[in-house]
Amino acid sequence: MDDDDRHARKMAKKKAARDKIMATKTAEKGLVIVHTGKGKGKSTAAFGMIFRCIAHEMPSAVVQFIKGGMSTGERDLILGQFSHLCEFHTMGEGFTWETQDRSRDTEMAQAAWTKAKELIRDPANRMVLLDEINIALRYDYIDAAEVAAFLRDEKPPQTHVVLTGRNARDEILDIADLVTEMELVKHPFRAGVKAQIGVEY
Amino acid sequence: MDDDDRHARKMAKKKAARDKIMATKTAEKGLVIVHTGKGKGKSTAAFGMIFRCIAHEMPSAVVQFIKGGMSTGERDLILGQFSHLCEFHTMGEGFTWETQDRSRDTEMAQAAWTKAKELIRDPANRMVLLDEINIALRYDYIDAAEVAAFLRDEKPPQTHVVLTGRNARDEILDIADLVTEMELVKHPFRAGVKAQIGVEY
Repeated sequence: MDDDDRHARKMAKKKAARDKIMATKTAEKGLVIVHTGKGKGKSTAAFGMIFRCIAHEMPSAVVQFIKGGMSTGERDLILGQFSHLCEFHTMGEGFTWETQDRSRDTEMAQAAWTKAKELIRDPANRMVLLDEINIALRYDYIDAAEVAAFLRDEKPPQTHVVLTGRNARDEILDIADLVTEMELVKHPFRAGVKAQIGVEY
Repeated sequence: MDDDDRHARKMAKKKAARDKIMATKTAEKGLVIVHTGKGKGKSTAAFGMIFRCIAHEMPSAVVQFIKGGMSTGERDLILGQFSHLCEFHTMGEGFTWETQDRSRDTEMAQAAWTKAKELIRDPANRMVLLDEINIALRYDYIDAAEVAAFLRDEKPPQTHVVLTGRNARDEILDIADLVTEMELVKHPFRAGVKAQIGVEY
């Protein structure tokens, strides 16, 4: 029981410290959230937040900048059952090494960005996901400084915007409120395992 | 146009290399997937995979080891609309510094692990999410060597098991197929912003 008592005391202290910290966190603010890094889970976690919004009946929107070629489960589920809560636009046509056409990719990315601005400006949307926009920014299909300035100056204050994709640009990281880097520690592709339903798509 | 040609050639090369690699990835295998690290998105990405399974009508299950005290959007959505596809168990009673009772926490964690084994053994489940189990393992509420041995020796070969929580134990990392570390780069709590609906829960 001594051990349990020690544990209880330690945890009571931890709780007091935590409660004190949490009491200072009172601001509500629309966040610019970035998921980047080479690891998995960048888009998956972003779609997880969209499902959270759906659960709370908060209107949201998704623009897919690159992955258009790939039909994902999330997309089917949102289009099939939650299109009244989440507007979904797939603007890209697969990864850039699939299309091999820089001019068309640029046009697509620009059209996606125009749509994204419209959705972000609409105050009805509480969260807008710009899926794989970092790749379009990395290839200079869209100007990173322009995106950063728009998010800083024109985003409605209570709207959350989530940007995903590896190699996020510094311009975006500078104005972001929340940045998570998904780091690859171990990957089964290395052991000859293919992309699987439910895990990768 | 020279620039576009160069881009097209570069991308064609990239695609050929990628296609060649992907052709070698043919195995299907139930994976042990770990999301760890101090950053955000560990549980969110895991629930994203559960929603993927739901989208594909693949039966799945969730056991929440710690976060019981907190009602999350995902949980409400799954219980409300997808309980026929996803069995959901919340076994913990909030974080351990909320409960301050080691004996009760250990009992709860053991009961959760017993339920988890039952769900993993059931071959109908294609994916089982053990949410925040890493915390229960870190506090020794459950034995890491036992969990590792079970996942290695008794998990049905086609079932995916996802384990989340910071400070994943080495015993678990050793037997995992896919490990992602969510690394915290920037966090708005530091700027006095509180946990917000749709983002954190």
